[in-house]
Amino acid sequence: MGNSFGKLFKITTFGESHGLALGVIIEGCPAGLKIDEAKLIAEMQRRKPGQSKITTQRKEEDEFEIKSGVFEGVTTGTPIGIVINNSDQKSKDYSHISDKFRPSHADFTYFEKYGLRDYRGGGRSSARETAARVVAGAIAKQLLETKGISIQAYVSQVGDLKLEKYHADLDLSQAEENIVRCPDPAMAEEMIELIDSVRKDRDTIGGVVSCVIKNTPVGIGEPVFDRLHAELGKAMLSINAVKGFEYGSGFEGVKMRGSSHNDTFVQDGDKVRTLTNHSGGIQGGISNGEDIYFNVAFKPVATIMTDQESVNEAGEAVVVSGKGRHDPCVVPRAVPIVEAMAALVIADYILLSKSNKLQDF
Amino acid sequence: MGNSFGKLFKITTFGESHGLALGVIIEGCPAGLKIDEAKLIAEMQRRKPGQSKITTQRKEEDEFEIKSGVFEGVTTGTPIGIVINNSDQKSKDYSHISDKFRPSHADFTYFEKYGLRDYRGGGRSSARETAARVVAGAIAKQLLETKGISIQAYVSQVGDLKLEKYHADLDLSQAEENIVRCPDPAMAEEMIELIDSVRKDRDTIGGVVSCVIKNTPVGIGEPVFDRLHAELGKAMLSINAVKGFEYGSGFEGVKMRGSSHNDTFVQDGDKVRTLTNHSGGIQGGISNGEDIYFNVAFKPVATIMTDQESVNEAGEAVVVSGKGRHDPCVVPRAVPIVEAMAALVIADYILLSKSNKLQDF
Amino acid sequence: MGNSFGKLFKITTFGESHGLALGVIIEGCPAGLKIDEAKLIAEMQRRKPGQSKITTQRKEEDEFEIKSGVFEGVTTGTPIGIVINNSDQKSKDYSHISDKFRPSHADFTYFEKYGLRDYRGGGRSSARETAARVVAGAIAKQLLETKGISIQAYVSQVGDLKLEKYHADLDLSQAEENIVRCPDPAMAEEMIELIDSVRKDRDTIGGVVSCVIKNTPVGIGEPVFDRLHAELGKAMLSINAVKGFEYGSGFEGVKMRGSSHNDTFVQDGDKVRTLTNHSGGIQGGISNGEDIYFNVAFKPVATIMTDQESVNEAGEAVVVSGKGRHDPCVVPRAVPIVEAMAALVIADYILLSKSNKLQDF
Amino acid sequence: MGNSFGKLFKITTFGESHGLALGVIIEGCPAGLKIDEAKLIAEMQRRKPGQSKITTQRKEEDEFEIKSGVFEGVTTGTPIGIVINNSDQKSKDYSHISDKFRPSHADFTYFEKYGLRDYRGGGRSSARETAARVVAGAIAKQLLETKGISIQAYVSQVGDLKLEKYHADLDLSQAEENIVRCPDPAMAEEMIELIDSVRKDRDTIGGVVSCVIKNTPVGIGEPVFDRLHAELGKAMLSINAVKGFEYGSGFEGVKMRGSSHNDTFVQDGDKVRTLTNHSGGIQGGISNGEDIYFNVAFKPVATIMTDQESVNEAGEAVVVSGKGRHDPCVVPRAVPIVEAMAALVIADYILLSKSNKLQDF
Repeated sequence: MGNSFGKLFKITTFGESHGLALGVIIEGCPAGLKIDEAKLIAEMQRRKPGQSKITTQRKEEDEFEIKSGVFEGVTTGTPIGIVINNSDQKSKDYSHISDKFRPSHADFTYFEKYGLRDYRGGGRSSARETAARVVAGAIAKQLLETKGISIQAYVSQVGDLKLEKYHADLDLSQAEENIVRCPDPAMAEEMIELIDSVRKDRDTIGGVVSCVIKNTPVGIGEPVFDRLHAELGKAMLSINAVKGFEYGSGFEGVKMRGSSHNDTFVQDGDKVRTLTNHSGGIQGGISNGEDIYFNVAFKPVATIMTDQESVNEAGEAVVVSGKGRHDPCVVPRAVPIVEAMAALVIADYILLSKSNKLQDF
Repeated sequence: MGNSFGKLFKITTFGESHGLALGVIIEGCPAGLKIDEAKLIAEMQRRKPGQSKITTQRKEEDEFEIKSGVFEGVTTGTPIGIVINNSDQKSKDYSHISDKFRPSHADFTYFEKYGLRDYRGGGRSSARETAARVVAGAIAKQLLETKGISIQAYVSQVGDLKLEKYHADLDLSQAEENIVRCPDPAMAEEMIELIDSVRKDRDTIGGVVSCVIKNTPVGIGEPVFDRLHAELGKAMLSINAVKGFEYGSGFEGVKMRGSSHNDTFVQDGDKVRTLTNHSGGIQGGISNGEDIYFNVAFKPVATIMTDQESVNEAGEAVVVSGKGRHDPCVVPRAVPIVEAMAALVIADYILLSKSNKLQDF
Repeated sequence: MGNSFGKLFKITTFGESHGLALGVIIEGCPAGLKIDEAKLIAEMQRRKPGQSKITTQRKEEDEFEIKSGVFEGVTTGTPIGIVINNSDQKSKDYSHISDKFRPSHADFTYFEKYGLRDYRGGGRSSARETAARVVAGAIAKQLLETKGISIQAYVSQVGDLKLEKYHADLDLSQAEENIVRCPDPAMAEEMIELIDSVRKDRDTIGGVVSCVIKNTPVGIGEPVFDRLHAELGKAMLSINAVKGFEYGSGFEGVKMRGSSHNDTFVQDGDKVRTLTNHSGGIQGGISNGEDIYFNVAFKPVATIMTDQESVNEAGEAVVVSGKGRHDPCVVPRAVPIVEAMAALVIADYILLSKSNKLQDF
Repeated sequence: MGNSFGKLFKITTFGESHGLALGVIIEGCPAGLKIDEAKLIAEMQRRKPGQSKITTQRKEEDEFEIKSGVFEGVTTGTPIGIVINNSDQKSKDYSHISDKFRPSHADFTYFEKYGLRDYRGGGRSSARETAARVVAGAIAKQLLETKGISIQAYVSQVGDLKLEKYHADLDLSQAEENIVRCPDPAMAEEMIELIDSVRKDRDTIGGVVSCVIKNTPVGIGEPVFDRLHAELGKAMLSINAVKGFEYGSGFEGVKMRGSSHNDTFVQDGDKVRTLTNHSGGIQGGISNGEDIYFNVAFKPVATIMTDQESVNEAGEAVVVSGKGRHDPCVVPRAVPIVEAMAALVIADYILLSKSNKLQDF
């Protein structure tokens, strides 16, 4: 279990950090979508290591190949199989930790669960798996663009540097103009400096990615257990290193009173709108047409460049030494992953909402 | 879609706020579990309206009847069907809002999605549906008790009154000793006073429910998309009025550095333990045997006892008047709901983890 | 597992033969469908015991109550919960077999699987469960009628009395004119006589139900594993006592050569039709617009009115005596069950086919 | 939808007949299984084209590569990704039918469903997809071998040449000794002759594959909708060209009376056995420990080497000419496919049955 996401627009991924390849099967993409491969490559570039001085300096080209489901550049309705070869499988790098449990990694839990593990770079538990999500999400994004739906994520916090502005008061297009992907240039510079200083300390730091989805049609979402925000939450919590999710007014909203939290409905032409948007674009689990927005908390990366005490498979005390090339802060590279997962949820939920009324049956 | 939760230990619910009955089908409960109905009733009492001066004064008896799946007091492995009759269907109470969209309720989104709606008390979108979850969760709890797993939730915040203590520094058994369900008696009193004053203002306020799960075996959880905390997050976000979820170090953890956030492994007898527990008992989506703990943010209840501006189905400006008997703050009654959903997730994930190793096949 | 059927139009059933009640939750029925309860009752009458001299003389009224999902006579899009009380729970009738394994029943397998069993009338394994399917299927039928799709099943074989005519050469409306539900009046009389003589021998006999679905739109069905006929096959094989399923040319078709088996395409106005229909209306798992037709084989009912040797839970040799009121041949009452399951499949697959093309996204 | 099979032991396939590659992701295989690649290759050889004079003379090497989920020769519990490159993509071969609907193929239905199609060799609807199933099934078989479960299929009918012997009266090991895979040598020769003469007529013919599963533990199977035989039926009906499925006494059983059809239970040492096995090893949808056996009907292959009338996408009358290298009869190569699907079902259902009793929770 656990390798698939989505019900009708569904992805299933495979692959370990240092195996031969990663891959993904995308099901449910309607036939007739022209795939712009350049956009897929661009999304992969946003996620890939080595893109700036504040990310890991590992080199992974992340070249993918579409093996099926696209004929003459257009989707056929059949599953889209994509393979991403691991060009650089330096498994010898990992022999020094082959029987050690790295602190706050999944080494111990995988070993206990399965009785053995692929210790090379975390194996299946590595964030390398998200490469498969990003290429799938890029296709979902292209699908959503045909309906005018856009998804934009950005870094809103690094350590205790927190961007306090409401998303609508920001120029989100600025987010891609700097290497930390924060749409506020002054804050971006501070964040870059902080990450750089953490890197020099051979340490890591956490952060928050915020995301805004515009133009979701009204009525998308399923009642009760599969509320739109519940699925978005699960999607985000399934990303490596994520510790929290909130949408709309979120954790801050608990301090408010109903009289100021409630979003007043008004008629605006032929549309019903709300004056405020504490609901985060979702009411009763169903989209109301306002911007959907949410925050995703990422912990500091567990791999640090210093020695740490731990135990090994035999229960002996050992020292885990930090080696290799790792991210001092994961949020800049997490931005396209958050967008990818959001796109997958929205695409899936639009498909799920096709026959809510008898006239659409 | 959206009426089922779980994969192997699975519930499916039906029922509207003011229909004839609610109900739930519970699948996957192993055969041979002795059902203690008194405990089921006790859980329902914790959720039911009218239990104290800070909850709604509505009277709902929430009597349930087990229709199947239990023979001579013991589960048979077949689906457990439970029906909760709505004894008191005062649908005339709701005629004044039959075509109005109550602010921050699901009236508008349901109407747009389905083209019509059962306007009586929110219909399917009402939190009354959670009665079905609580009785199902109470059975899951009894199942978990056979393995020594306990689940305890409590109120940790109301408005800006926040209990800053770590769960292990609290006596959680105190939570049920007061009507707000906060395990710190002094804080409890403050919270009760705050809710009472909000009630007198005919307003509502939000809060946070925290939850601790003890004794989950190591190795429970599924990699990648179905990580244990992702499913817990979805479970919590599916509860009415929830706006956020965080586990372990959560949103605060983003401020930390890896060197202090990482949980050091140590050998403790025949067990591997961690010195700290920022991971919240889950690493790589899989339980590591430490306490699982998380927070759930609830917004202020949307129904307030004052007039609010809105629009109706015809797009006309209307006034929605607050009537009836509603909760000024939902968190005291949400405590058993959070526990129920947590119990359902853990029971389900234990079943999912039965054959991870060849020797268990 | 195993209590749900369908993906988008989905039913989940509960209930044992002699428990308090049976029931079903129907999900995915589009909002706005006017429910004609008289038609639901009529379907239940077709299935219910005691309807003629060739069925069991048991009295079960099979009155159902719709508890949710229908408001002012119209579906709301929320789950439809239906409860059928077991008015007549004569559990004492079954004490004589409480520890005995009845031959070719599920007593032994349930006992081994679950370690205990509800021995009253087969418990969950009883065909009484199909009452829940029939009422759900009757709603699916009403949904399909809005698209002009009709489903008609009939008895085509009892013992070795086999109706050799092709369905299109029969007047299927005749099927409901006689108690065995065979559309050929002469054959019907022979079948009735045969069943009656078997009944007098205190024995049982098998039969075949055939089914024709008309006006399924072109393009319904999913490639590869969820082919339309594979799902229809599973649906039918899930009915008690079913041993085989074939569609289109079926088992007879294996004797043919491709040159005569292939269905020639011809243009007929704006439609593509086939001159023959060995494909049974399904090609590559997807409907082609021709009649879908299939056969379902039912074994002789296992309960016979004579003494049989067997063993009990302790492994001792015992005699199982035939008691009670049972069907000498199950196919007349199976006709509405086959139709119900077919309706559920078609409704579900129409929903699944809503966004195959980009223009429908 | 439709590209996955199984619930816990689950496969998801991708790939078209003439795309770059086929592939499969296998989930749920327990960790610790030593993979014998030679056995995987052997299964692929049994399915591959060009293996004898009575199969297609196409050359497809069907070399696969395991990309993930196996580390140092042993499964890790993570998804096993396998890619099979299409070495020989002669898409020009198919230009003559690019807008024509081949009779009794899926060309028309796919075109109507998706609005376009990959016309090269049937695209996704080609039986080439079954290569992915066979390699996955070969892994399932190895898993089942660890529990002593064996699966053996064979050809029991070609055209009207039908092997009337009961499976237990045959030496099934003989099936692989001849090119038609019939365990009766004399009948095998007749069948080979028949297929060869059909081939010379540039025609095709249908057949039946029978299958026997030995040593399934008692208690495997899910009640009601997911009965073991219902899932086996769906699995078989999902194979290209299949028109029917029957298990145990099957369609012949309908002629019997209950008194002779019922399988008498007897105690045999510490086991409960049945004297006869009309039940086909499954009672109430759950295995009883006896041999599971079933028959699968395959229609004559639709591709014949003669001219056929049809229509094209524009609705014009056209002639479809038979070209290329195709099977005159599909059943010899279908034998390993039937076994693969059976292995997948049994592996999945064993996983599903792990916690039926409280003591196994």
